[in-house]
This record gives sequence, structure tokens and C-alpha cells, in this order.
Amino acid sequence: MSTKQELLQNPIQHIDIKQHNVVALVDAMNHMAYSSRDLARAATIYDMMLRDTECGVILCLAGSLISAGLKQVIIDLLRNNMVDAIVSTGANIVDQDFFEALGFKHYVAGEEYKYGAGDAELREMMIDRIYDTFIDEEELRICDETTEKIINGMKPGAYSSREFIKEMGKYLAENGRTPKNGNEDSIVLAAYELNIPIFCPAFSDCSFGFGIVAHQHARQGKPMCSIDSGKDFYELTQLKIQNPTTGLLMIGGGVPKNFAQDIVVAADILGVEASMHKYAIQITVADARDGALSGSTLKEASSWGKVDLTWEQMVYSEATIALPLIAGYAYHKKAYAART
Amino acid sequence: MSTKQELLQNPIQHIDIKQHNVVALVDAMNHMAYSSRDLARAATIYDMMLRDTECGVILCLAGSLISAGLKQVIIDLLRNNMVDAIVSTGANIVDQDFFEALGFKHYVAGEEYKYGAGDAELREMMIDRIYDTFIDEEELRICDETTEKIINGMKPGAYSSREFIKEMGKYLAENGRTPKNGNEDSIVLAAYELNIPIFCPAFSDCSFGFGIVAHQHARQGKPMCSIDSGKDFYELTQLKIQNPTTGLLMIGGGVPKNFAQDIVVAADILGVEASMHKYAIQITVADARDGALSGSTLKEASSWGKVDLTWEQMVYSEATIALPLIAGYAYHKKAYAART
Amino acid sequence: MSTKQELLQNPIQHIDIKQHNVVALVDAMNHMAYSSRDLARAATIYDMMLRDTECGVILCLAGSLISAGLKQVIIDLLRNNMVDAIVSTGANIVDQDFFEALGFKHYVAGEEYKYGAGDAELREMMIDRIYDTFIDEEELRICDETTEKIINGMKPGAYSSREFIKEMGKYLAENGRTPKNGNEDSIVLAAYELNIPIFCPAFSDCSFGFGIVAHQHARQGKPMCSIDSGKDFYELTQLKIQNPTTGLLMIGGGVPKNFAQDIVVAADILGVEASMHKYAIQITVADARDGALSGSTLKEASSWGKVDLTWEQMVYSEATIALPLIAGYAYHKKAYAART
Amino acid sequence: MSTKQELLQNPIQHIDIKQHNVVALVDAMNHMAYSSRDLARAATIYDMMLRDTECGVILCLAGSLISAGLKQVIIDLLRNNMVDAIVSTGANIVDQDFFEALGFKHYVAGEEYKYGAGDAELREMMIDRIYDTFIDEEELRICDETTEKIINGMKPGAYSSREFIKEMGKYLAENGRTPKNGNEDSIVLAAYELNIPIFCPAFSDCSFGFGIVAHQHARQGKPMCSIDSGKDFYELTQLKIQNPTTGLLMIGGGVPKNFAQDIVVAADILGVEASMHKYAIQITVADARDGALSGSTLKEASSWGKVDLTWEQMVYSEATIALPLIAGYAYHKKAYAART
Ligand SMILES: NC(=O)c1ccc[n+]([C@@H]2O[C@H](COP(=O)([O-])OP(=O)(O)OC[C@H]3O[C@@H](n4cnc5c(N)ncnc54)[C@H](O)[C@@H]3O)[C@@H](O)[C@H]2O)c1
Ligand SMILES: NC(=O)c1ccc[n+]([C@@H]2O[C@H](COP(=O)([O-])OP(=O)(O)OC[C@H]3O[C@@H](n4cnc5c(N)ncnc54)[C@H](O)[C@@H]3O)[C@@H](O)[C@H]2O)c1
Repeated sequence: MSTKQELLQNPIQHIDIKQHNVVALVDAMNHMAYSSRDLARAATIYDMMLRDTECGVILCLAGSLISAGLKQVIIDLLRNNMVDAIVSTGANIVDQDFFEALGFKHYVAGEEYKYGAGDAELREMMIDRIYDTFIDEEELRICDETTEKIINGMKPGAYSSREFIKEMGKYLAENGRTPKNGNEDSIVLAAYELNIPIFCPAFSDCSFGFGIVAHQHARQGKPMCSIDSGKDFYELTQLKIQNPTTGLLMIGGGVPKNFAQDIVVAADILGVEASMHKYAIQITVADARDGALSGSTLKEASSWGKVDLTWEQMVYSEATIALPLIAGYAYHKKAYAART
Repeated sequence: MSTKQELLQNPIQHIDIKQHNVVALVDAMNHMAYSSRDLARAATIYDMMLRDTECGVILCLAGSLISAGLKQVIIDLLRNNMVDAIVSTGANIVDQDFFEALGFKHYVAGEEYKYGAGDAELREMMIDRIYDTFIDEEELRICDETTEKIINGMKPGAYSSREFIKEMGKYLAENGRTPKNGNEDSIVLAAYELNIPIFCPAFSDCSFGFGIVAHQHARQGKPMCSIDSGKDFYELTQLKIQNPTTGLLMIGGGVPKNFAQDIVVAADILGVEASMHKYAIQITVADARDGALSGSTLKEASSWGKVDLTWEQMVYSEATIALPLIAGYAYHKKAYAART
Repeated sequence: MSTKQELLQNPIQHIDIKQHNVVALVDAMNHMAYSSRDLARAATIYDMMLRDTECGVILCLAGSLISAGLKQVIIDLLRNNMVDAIVSTGANIVDQDFFEALGFKHYVAGEEYKYGAGDAELREMMIDRIYDTFIDEEELRICDETTEKIINGMKPGAYSSREFIKEMGKYLAENGRTPKNGNEDSIVLAAYELNIPIFCPAFSDCSFGFGIVAHQHARQGKPMCSIDSGKDFYELTQLKIQNPTTGLLMIGGGVPKNFAQDIVVAADILGVEASMHKYAIQITVADARDGALSGSTLKEASSWGKVDLTWEQMVYSEATIALPLIAGYAYHKKAYAART
Repeated sequence: MSTKQELLQNPIQHIDIKQHNVVALVDAMNHMAYSSRDLARAATIYDMMLRDTECGVILCLAGSLISAGLKQVIIDLLRNNMVDAIVSTGANIVDQDFFEALGFKHYVAGEEYKYGAGDAELREMMIDRIYDTFIDEEELRICDETTEKIINGMKPGAYSSREFIKEMGKYLAENGRTPKNGNEDSIVLAAYELNIPIFCPAFSDCSFGFGIVAHQHARQGKPMCSIDSGKDFYELTQLKIQNPTTGLLMIGGGVPKNFAQDIVVAADILGVEASMHKYAIQITVADARDGALSGSTLKEASSWGKVDLTWEQMVYSEATIALPLIAGYAYHKKAYAART
């Protein structure tokens, strides 16, 4: 039996797309078949979104992406003006990105843990597992507590997740959890510095939820903070209204995919004639056959009037392989240079 | 080309598990291999949950299940005392169940529509597609408006999704959308009548979201209603605290799966020593290999201290096939008779 | 650590569709969505094949189906005149059906073995694993040797797999491995008694391959037996030519699926104007997106002129759940009564 | 409606891994999670196989890989001494590689054809579809006829697929279908020139099958050629016996995967104490949960005594993305330089 220390020693390292020029590789895939061709087409569509200077790019994140080594990819997209808003699950933003921003890490788990053979022992050591990755649960508790601390510092009221996450960014900036101070960069920090909104439509369903529950429990009867998930929707819809041309870069499906698509309809309900999302690409391993949202095709979304048919592409691939290629392609094509 | 009327004439009919005694069939599957044996074991575990009179049963719903013909299954579980709380995506509860309670229907789409060949025409006719199912978008708009009307009738304040959904149930009861009045039964109504709580942790991500956006837009500056998603989490955690033994019957994954599992940790954060979920079964087509929550094994959840290892079972199957067998098995075994 | 004996004590039991009348259940699924509706449509198409008295029904088997508890289903289809020819992988016919006909069994493996946690120990005990099922390797060796013995008893020459399998059936009949003698029934025996041909297009890729290798090794230089896989194709094509109307009931994909489809083209090459397979259903968990044959849609097969478009249905489900429903439906609808 | 000529104008182009140095990219993936880490580990294991100068490398091919743009990858592996034997489905070798060697091409199909919307029209134009790829059926018929011509030119007798494929290579060499003559290179030609054996264990299940059926039909009664699939197995087993250390590089699953694994057992049956395959990697999208061979883990194979546990890796990814990265990695690491 290994000790906790032995199990938590090989940290996940985030891939740096800036180091890998995959343009020629991806261009070659354009003339092949199956997922490689789909991937190449998706990369081209993302490049088109960036060249369309009227287009607001919304990045959607579902799945455990940040713990898997994709954090730096997202930071690079933010810092190079390749994304205008993020819609994400709470886990990616709080439990994983903000968690690492506090100085913690995710760890490589051995092959033998993947299917649960060691879960009882992990439980005893307070190691949490995400498939082939380990997390120190004691560190995660600190993350939960930090969110509570941040909430406690805010004026009672109903906030959108965006407002809370901005506060988290401010916390990082003010507490020196920044590259300038020798710490690792983070999505929450970069978004804060660049004034890019991040939305988590199911925001209580993550480490932040533990913070809010503790906060509300302590305030019983007194004025308190609450997460107004309607406000999220309202704010993101404003973004649609201000950027009539929009494109979706979706990693995984779930709530973020549906939420970002729905703002077209919400704009309509507010009486604004909004165009469908003009560009849409999704990387997923989900399938259309269960009828669920995650694997539903973008063509299906067009029947709902949410996504335009011309420039959409589903990429059937696990994201740790596909995203470095698609984001790396767009990065090295440098279309962002012309964006303002 | 078919007309809208022609396309919307073959309604989805909800399967009635009360008519199909599958006990012997499922018992036979217990001695086979692969998914059939997993399914049989899951059915047995659900039966155990019901025989454990101390156990609170939480039903989790993700995916488009109600539109797919599974509405009556859920109603039967509620009306036969086989479920104590529901955690669901908004779509199942509002866009699909409440929608049908208003008198609307889902329709069978022809095979040729499944992969998007007709989506441009559907768009023009305002027919929305969920894989092989059609919805009249004009009717869906009425559903959106009804949620707005209900919200407008409420006192300004921050509500949990449970409180809003209870209000929707009351609306149905008061407006005669009941079996007694010759209308179809519904999940929202049954839960209202039986006082069973329903939670939608990402409640703005459905038809109700359109209602709340419209409401908040109209009230700008004035006191208004908001969805407090922290309150959801707090309330569901209370339920865990009151039912120290709990079991999860999960259809699909997504936010409901994580949310319901997390209340074990939330109770702990509130200083209550809560036991892990003692029983847990999940029907899903998602896979563990992408590291995402939906396909993560219940063993993995045990490393997080959320689910006990002894009585858990993943069933890899599409839910429209698996749920009638599992729910039907438990129904015809009649363990609910001893529950109070 | 368990002993070999302890691990091999819970035998797989084959489901008996004759005991479970699922007609009403499957009919109800016809009005739902996703896989349940596909399954119901497939069951209906199989029933149509049987009512079409001109139709020759070809059953294709891939995957480890017999070890999984589906043996009796196939036997029941054969003994009730619901199948006219079988195309299978070798494993189903030799390593699994013939193996059980020799008196051996497959065993239920515990959940904890599914993902390989105990494979090193299993190796040492000579227990072979198929996902959640165990096999005694020493018994499998006896099966290999029996095939060699049968080959050794045949006149040197090039045989089709059908001829070899017929010889295996004769061996069972002559050695009293029959129900009459208190032994379990088998596919190989039933096919022999009913004169239904069984083809294994990749016949060396199973226990029989070990027999033929041993045989050929012993005969070096001398006249010997060989598997003529061209003859298989030729013989199956004759069957197409004699039954101009044909239907395919495919469980899994792989070589059997392609082989049975290709006879339409082969007939054409022999100068016979043969019609496409009029009916085709496939139960599979494979996906179209990898471009491989197993998951390719039956529509795709129609572009090759192999399968007609009107009565084809893919059912996305694991076979241990779907086949008892589909075969059980057709059995209890009794269309076979009118076949000759 | 497009004409046949319009549909067949954008040929599949084969990716050239020699142009894309992916070593740093793949090395970075080693520190991530999920499929990227698995892919990186698999690439490392392939590199190890090549550095182990005692190791015979067996390449297994299933699925439609050659039509998908992976032909040149395989040729590069052969011509750079990175593969010692091939076990493949017939389709890859005959219908796709040999077919292109005769001067024909595969074509890119538009997105709208992927799910069968145009299959009826394709049928009329004699265009065959593989998911998103088109083939001219009239050209495929010429391929069928060429195999018949080659068979007709051979001395009657029972041949292994290896012998037939060698003859096909000779045909290409003698008819100037070579790069020297300005034609494209091919797998069959390269293997012929380099004396690398290619086995197709289900050899009648492809274009060659049509050739052999036509041949046997014409020769009725007279001495003829037959495919001896036992001989295939015997020959490949010899290869195992001569290379006690062996490694498997498997693309897809199916018959080739099982066949190549089984030679360990076959050697044993011939009385030779053969070691298990020391290295094994598989790229697949198949899943373990259906119990079928294609998705069965390599750990499972170790319970059968076929594959060693230490250096095995499954990579869950579609091959057109994963193979260029894995093969490209090994190529640019240049381990082949030390092989003899
Ligand atoms: N599905 C819809 O049509 C729809 C419509 C409006 C809004 N939404 C919203 O989108 C969000 C996500 O929706 P979702 O639940 O469809 O997401 P989802 O696709 O992420 O489903 C969650 C998981 O459940 C499993 N699953 C779903 N359906 C299944 C089935 N039939 N059988 C077996 N497993 C199944 C899937 O494997 C998936 O991983 C929610 O907020 C929901 O309210 C969805
Ligand atoms: N594929 C064709 O178009 C075609 C054409 C003519 C004949 N055939 C014949 O059909 C039989 C079966 O063919 P098959 O090999 O296509 O069977 P298959 O579909 O059974 O493939 C085997 C396995 O390989 C995996 N796989 C295939 N392609 C993959 C990819 N691109 N990426 C990752 N994994 C992949 C799949 O998961 C599958 O489980 C063979 O005898 C072959 O000669 C096939």
C-alpha cells in the first residue's frame, strides 16, 4: 500500500499549445475521413469565428477539463483575445481552476486505479479520484472554505454567478495569487484582469455550493447572499443582444451547451430579434441516440432556431486530444491579431 | 413535403409499467452477463431500498426522459410511494412534464428526421426536434409564458426551485389540469399533491428560465423574484440530514447526479455527521473514459465519500429500455406496501 | 484470495424466452422514443420476415453471446423454425456452444473482476475471463482437442466451415451429448438435427483453429484437412440464390454482418440477378462514426446495393437486454406457425 | 442533384507522418489525463517495442483505415522497418490498398451524406459509401475481377492468405503499379518488396472473396485454388515461435486482434513454450461493457495468457486522430534505426 504522499507526487502538467505548431498537421487531416476530418473542419470554423471581427466567441466548458491538463489552453485563449465569454460547469471554474490558483495541484493516478480497485483505501486517505487523476480532499476543503470567506465578505443580495466569480478573481489578484508573484496563472484571474465574464448556470453544484450553503446556514434569518441563476441567464442574453453575431466553441455538453444556445430564444422573448449563433463547434464523446442534450447534433439545435446550419461541426473525440489540436491550430493561425 | 399538421399527429404514448409484470424476466437476467445482469442487480438494489424502511429514495433525472414516454413511470413511482424526492434537469420537469400537463403533447418523428435531414424545414414550421421526437414550438412558447405568469403571481423574493415547482403544481391543481377533470396526470401535480419535493439545480436552463428572464426584465429596478440555487442545495441537504439512510435512483447523469451526491458532503460542512448514500444505481450510456461526472462510476463516488461501495450498480443502457424493466420490477415486487 | 473452485461455482444460466411473453411490453415501446422505439420496430420487422413465407432468415452472431446466457434463445429460434441459416464468429459456435455441449459451463464473475483487478491471479489458476464471466481454461483445452479429434476423423480435403460444424453436430449426436440423454441442448446439435447450415467465415479464429493447427502440424507433408473459406462464401451465396427474398437478423457486427450482406453482390458476380436483402435488423452498441463495418448503418449498406431501405432497423443496445425482447416478441407472436 | 462525376472529385489524401514531428506534443500529453495520457503512453510503448531489438512487431488492422487516409502511415511503418508482420481485415488490404494501387481513389463525401440521406441516389449512380467517404462501385468491380485474374493464374491448391497477397504484390510489381513508374506506393507492394507477411484471417470477406467465388464457380469439378485459413494460423504461429519476444500494435479490434493474440496459445499447442506478447497497444472506440473481443481490455487478454500485463495500453480514440500521433511519434524518435 502506498502512502498518501506517495500517491500525490506526480502532478498533472498543463499542455502549452504555444509550443506546438499543429497547423500543417490539422490541415492534412482535412483530407482524411471520420473524426480527423471533422476535427480539421472544426478548427477551420473556429479560425473563421476569429476572423469575423463582429463575432462574439462564447466558450462552453463541461466535463473535468481543467484537472485534466487543459487549464493553460483556456488561459492562452483568454490572454490572446480568442474568447469573449465563458459558460462553464462550476467544477471547472471553482474546484479545479480556482483550486489550483490557491496553490494546489491535481495528480496523475496509476492505471490500476482507473476502474475503482483502490477506492476504499483512497477514501481512508482522503484522496478523491477523477478517473485517472487524484485530488487531496483536505485541500479541496480549503477551497470550499475560501469561497465561503469570499461570500461572507460581500454585501447581502442576489448575485449572478458572474459577479461571484469576478469576486473570486479579485480575491486572487489582491492576495497575490498571480504569475507576477511567482504563482501559476489561472482562468479566474485572467478573466478578471481582462474583464471577460464567466457564467456557471448550475453554480451551487460545485465547491462554491458548499460555500453558499455554509454562508446561508450561518446567516439564518439575517440578510444573506444568494445565487440568482435567472440573473445569469439575463446577463448572458444581454451579451447576445450586444453581439448580434456569435459563435460557440463547446467542449463537452451538459448545461453550458444548452444555456449558451438558449440565449437566442431569450433575446427573442425580450423582444429583440437576435440571429442564431452563426458558428458552432462541439467536441464530445456523447452520442445522439439517447436523445439527451449533450450528444444532440447542432443540426438538431437548428430546428430550435438556436444554431445556424452552415458553419457547425460536431467532433467526436475526447477533449484532451482534440482541444490542443483545435485551439493550437487557431492560435498559430493568429487570426486573433486582427480582433479588437 | 409534409405539413406541420401531418408531422404532428402521432403522439408519444407513455408506457404503463403497471400493465407489464417483468419480475420473472428480470430475475432471469440475474444469471446472464453484461448489461442484463447489471440491470437485474440494479432492480434488486432498488427493491432493497424500498424494503429498507429507513431509507429516503432520491430519484435523479437527466436527459429528455419525459418527452420519450417515461412520464407515467415516474408518476407511478410517486403515487405508489416509491420515491421521496426528485432532483432533475429543468427540461424534464418544465418543458416536458408541465408542458404536457398544460394539455400539449410530444410527437413521434419519422426515422428520416433523426439525423437532421429535415431540420431546415422544421425550423420554418416552428417544429422543434429532440432526436426522433417533435414538439410544437408555438405550444412551448405558451409553456414559457405560463411560467412567467406564475412567477408574476408570487411575492418578490429569492426562492428555491422546489418552491417554484410547488407553485407550478398548485397552478395545475387550481386550474383543473388534473386527472379528475379528465386531463392527464403529471409529475408536477402528483408531487404537489403528495408533498414530494422536486429540485432543479440548474433551474434557469429550461422553459422556466425564459419565464424568469421575462419577469426580471419587466421588473427592472422594482422588487422581483429570483431563483436561489444555494437554497436548493441547502434544502436538499436538510433532507439528507433527516433521512440518515438514503438511496439514489439515477436516470442519466449530469447536474442532478452530482447535486444529489454532494449533499453528503454538504451535511458534513453543516457539522452533521451524515452517512454516505447507502444505495445507488445509475442508468446511463455515458462512459468513464472521458473523466466526466455523468459516466463516472459509483465506485469513484465512493472515493469522494459520497456513495457506499456495497450496494451500487451502474447500468449501461439507454433509459427507455432499462427504466421500464427496473421500475416495473420494483413495482410488481410491491415492496412499497410496507413503506410509510 | 478465492480458490479456483470457489470462483467457478455460479454458472451462467440461459434465459428462456418461452417463459416470458413480452408482446405487450414491446408493443408499448413502439410509441416511445430512442432505443425502445427502435427495438420495437426491429421486433416488428423480424415478425414480418417470418410472416413472409418466401423469406429465408439469416441469423448473424458476433460478440460473446452464448457465454452470456443467450444460447437457449438461439436454440429456441432454430427449433421453432425461425431461422434458416446462421453466420457466426467461431467463438460463439465452438468455444461457447460446442464447449457447453461437451458438458462444460460458463461462470458468473464478481463485479470486482470486470476491469482486470484480478487478472494476474486468474492467469495462475488458468481461469479465462470474458468481462464479467469466467471459463475454466483446462476445459477449453479439452474443447480444442475435441475439434482436433473430429478433424482427424475426416477424409483429407478442403471443407467449408459448414461441413466441419455439421461434423461437430454429428459428433454430439453420436456421443449422446443430447437432451434425450439428459444433457443440455445446443445450437450445433439443433442445427445438425434440423439440417440448418452454420457458417463461420473466420473459422480458424477460435477453438477450431487450434484443432486445425494441431492437425496440420501432425500431418506435415501428408494429405490433410483445410478450411476453405472461399467455399463458405460460395455455399452461402447459393442460399441467397435459392431464397430470392432474404432477411438478416444481426446480433453484433463484425465479419458475420459483412459476410451475410456480401452474398447479394456475390450472386450478381455469379451472373444471378439477386435482390437485396429485403429485411435487415441489427442489435449493436457500435457507432457509425468510426467508419467501421460493425456500426455502419443499414442505410449505408443500401448504397452498396446489399440491403433494401424500407425494412431495416438498427437497435442501439447491448444484446443481452435487447435480444430476449426481440426474439421473445417474435416467438410469442407465433408467426413461425405458418412457415414450412 | 449532383452527378456521379461531381460527387467523386475530392479525393482522400493520405497523411504523411514524416512531415509532422509530433514528439514534443505527444510527450506533453504524458502529463495530462484521460485519452491523451493513454495515447502518449501507447506511443512510448511502441517506441519501446522498436528499441527492443529482439521484438517482432505485429501490426493489426481492422475498420476502414486505408480508405480514411491512413495508407501512407502504414507504408511508412513498413518502409522504415517498424513492422514485421501485418494481420488485417481483407477490406483494408484488398478493397482499399490494392484498389488504390490499381490507380483508383477514395473520395470525400459531404457532411449531408454521413447519415444516409442520399443513399438511394448513390445506389442508382453506383457510388458506395463508407460513412463520409465515396467509392466508385464500377472501379471496385475491376478490383474484384483483378483478384480473380490473379487466382486464375495460380496453380490449383490450398493457399494461405499470405501467399495470395504476396501474389498480389507480385502482380503490382510486374505490372508497373509502382512509385518508380509514377504510380502511388501501396502496402501490398511494399510488403512484397520487403518480404513482410500480410495475413487476412477472414480472407473471403472482402473483394478477394468475390474473386475466389468466381474462380471456384468457373472451375467446378476441376482442380481449383482455395483459401486455407488454417494455414494462415499455422504460418503466423511459426512467426511467434521464431520471435519469442513480440509486440502488438493494434488499430481497431475484430478478427485481427484475436487472431494475433491467439498465436501464443497455438504455439503452446504445437508444444513450443512461447512467451506472452510482451508489448500490446490498441487504438479503439469499442467498449468493454458488451463483452465482445474488440473492446475487451488487454488486461483481460492477460487472463488468457496471451498478453503480458506490464506494457499494455488501450487508447480510446478514433484511429484517424490517434494513429498519426502514435506512429508519428515513433517515427520521429527514430528507434527503427537500430533495428536489423
Ligand atoms: N434534453 C433536452 O432536450 C433539453 C431541453 C431543454 C433544456 N435542456 C437542458 O439542458 C441541460 C442538460 O440536459 P441533459 O440532461 O439532456 O444533459 P446531458 O446530455 O448532459 O445528459 C446527462 C447524462 O445522462 C445520460 N443520459 C441522458 N439521457 C439518457 C438516456 N435516454 N438513457 C441513458 N442515459 C442517458 C447521458 O449519458 C448524459 O451523460 C439541462 O439543464 C436541461 O434542462 C435540455
Ligand atoms: N469496413 C468496411 O467498409 C468493409 C468493407 C468490406 C468488407 N469489410 C469486412 O468486414 C469485416 C469487418 O470489418 P471491420 O474491421 O470494419 O469491423 P469492425 O467494425 O468490427 O471493427 C472492429 C473494431 O475496430 C474498431 N475500430 C474500427 N475502426 C476504428 C477507427 N477508425 N478508430 C478506432 N477504432 C476503430 C471498432 O471499435 C470495432 O470494434 C472484415 O472482414 C472486413 O474485411 C469491411
